[in-house]
Amino acid sequence: MDLFLIRHGIARDRALCSSDAERPLTSTGKKRTQKVAQRLADCGARFDLILTSPLLRAKQTADILLAAGLSQAVEVFTPLAPMGDLQLWVNWNQVYTYHSVALVGHQPDLGLWAEQLIWAHAPEKLIVKKAGVIGLKVGDRGSPIGSSELFLLTAPKWFL
Amino acid sequence: MDLFLIRHGIARDRALCSSDAERPLTSTGKKRTQKVAQRLADCGARFDLILTSPLLRAKQTADILLAAGLSQAVEVFTPLAPMGDLQLWVNWNQVYTYHSVALVGHQPDLGLWAEQLIWAHAPEKLIVKKAGVIGLKVGDRGSPIGSSELFLLTAPKWFL
Repeated sequence: MDLFLIRHGIARDRALCSSDAERPLTSTGKKRTQKVAQRLADCGARFDLILTSPLLRAKQTADILLAAGLSQAVEVFTPLAPMGDLQLWVNWNQVYTYHSVALVGHQPDLGLWAEQLIWAHAPEKLIVKKAGVIGLKVGDRGSPIGSSELFLLTAPKWFL
Repeated sequence: MDLFLIRHGIARDRALCSSDAERPLTSTGKKRTQKVAQRLADCGARFDLILTSPLLRAKQTADILLAAGLSQAVEVFTPLAPMGDLQLWVNWNQVYTYHSVALVGHQPDLGLWAEQLIWAHAPEKLIVKKAGVIGLKVGDRGSPIGSSELFLLTAPKWFL
């Protein structure tokens, strides 16, 4: 399975919002995320399913991926909220019935999860920018932890 | 220091060449590598120095990077030949006087070296395609092994 971990775009400052969960993407964040989504589509990426963190900036990012035609399905998945637990979605067997899935979430979680999936430990050595994309090949047998391969890590700077 | 590890482009089949060292890039390999070089230049990449494996397909790749204006200097560096030793260039102190260096070489060496620089071990979990690019942030103090960070891994598919 191809697993894409996609960080939300640039969001409004915390000081300007009533709660962290309700921080929307900025105008620049929306435009840049739309460009990333279009580039992914142009490169041939398609997702059987997009799972997103329940936070507004992640849901808006997932909606932009949907609008670019990258998938026909988005679901909120609470383990993708900040400080989420990798095991909760690794153990969610339904995910392995798909060929290509995108998870929209937050840092440092996405980088830590990718490192766990690839090397079974996570010393925080992946630099994942806003609207950045990680692409992993995840086996469909046994635990994906420590057995996945990395084929893509990019920031908008290198992608647009 | 930004360290870019760049794999040579698509080369002619071994069966059609007198020696592995003399395999040239194919016409498609040249064009695709030129596009990757142009994209790197458009993204703002510049190298103080390009070091290349002495093999023809690597030297031709390095010359394409030079022609795209990515650097003004290319040098052949024998530790970048296949089965090269990471320690030989890690110990080559001159490299750390630069802000941005590109090494042009071969697989599986480039992927293994990147993993060593980032995680201090190398279970071969990075997928590095021909004309693919790895970008690392390498500290300028102490050993870079196990202390570098990954900011870019891309194949031409995701870059062009």
